[in-house]
Amino acid sequence: MKITYFIIISFFFISCAVQKSATADKASILKVMKEQEKAWSQNDLEGFMQGYWKSDSLKFYGSNGLTKGWQQTLDNYKKSYPTKDHSGTLTFEIDDISPIETNSYWVMGRYFLKRKVGDANGNFLIIFKKIDGAWKIVADMSS
Amino acid sequence: MKITYFIIISFFFISCAVQKSATADKASILKVMKEQEKAWSQNDLEGFMQGYWKSDSLKFYGSNGLTKGWQQTLDNYKKSYPTKDHSGTLTFEIDDISPIETNSYWVMGRYFLKRKVGDANGNFLIIFKKIDGAWKIVADMSS
Repeated sequence: MKITYFIIISFFFISCAVQKSATADKASILKVMKEQEKAWSQNDLEGFMQGYWKSDSLKFYGSNGLTKGWQQTLDNYKKSYPTKDHSGTLTFEIDDISPIETNSYWVMGRYFLKRKVGDANGNFLIIFKKIDGAWKIVADMSS
Repeated sequence: MKITYFIIISFFFISCAVQKSATADKASILKVMKEQEKAWSQNDLEGFMQGYWKSDSLKFYGSNGLTKGWQQTLDNYKKSYPTKDHSGTLTFEIDDISPIETNSYWVMGRYFLKRKVGDANGNFLIIFKKIDGAWKIVADMSS
């Protein structure tokens, strides 16, 4: 009888711990994206890119095909969004955030750019991975 | 001296094993996608959907927004591609396949539909996860 109670209570606490961990993970990921919104909206593209894995293995898949690496992705952004008028104000709307494995999540959502030169928007699927204790985007498809 | 040799040789074999495992994983994932091409091209949409995780937690993110669940995704396909003339012949072209964690990979690529009613094509980012020993798509964004 005692063992049964112990097992039930253990499962309850483990379940709570897992849920709490997932909630904390999601909050950390959303915080990264909030910081990206802020940086982008100040045309701080390097700041925006802090949300991405600083690696040659980062992959960005956009309308112009595949871009490999953090530096190349930043260079492309700098070319396309040279001033604050080009980058405008960025807002994300999240449609889904789900775990893949212990240290990885995907996020599906929409981005909105409010700009003097004309608004722009699209969809994205990004993959976050916890690397050295920080959540970083390792893959990004934006349409 | 003997220990140094042992460590070097161990690292060599571990490195070989990891590479071999990644190669095997990628081959298995590409095999799933080959089977999907075949099934789709026979308008066997249920066969095509065998590549996806049979779960209400499957997420499909397309031009019409977010679809939740295996059954709903299949129902949408059935509505949009009722006959072989609608589904046509499917070909995938893979641009990137990379590991996320031990049991998960992403695939970036393009799909081409050759059809009498007009060709169609687009990009995708899909996430594969090994579930009960089989590689299944758990998330899909198609543009």
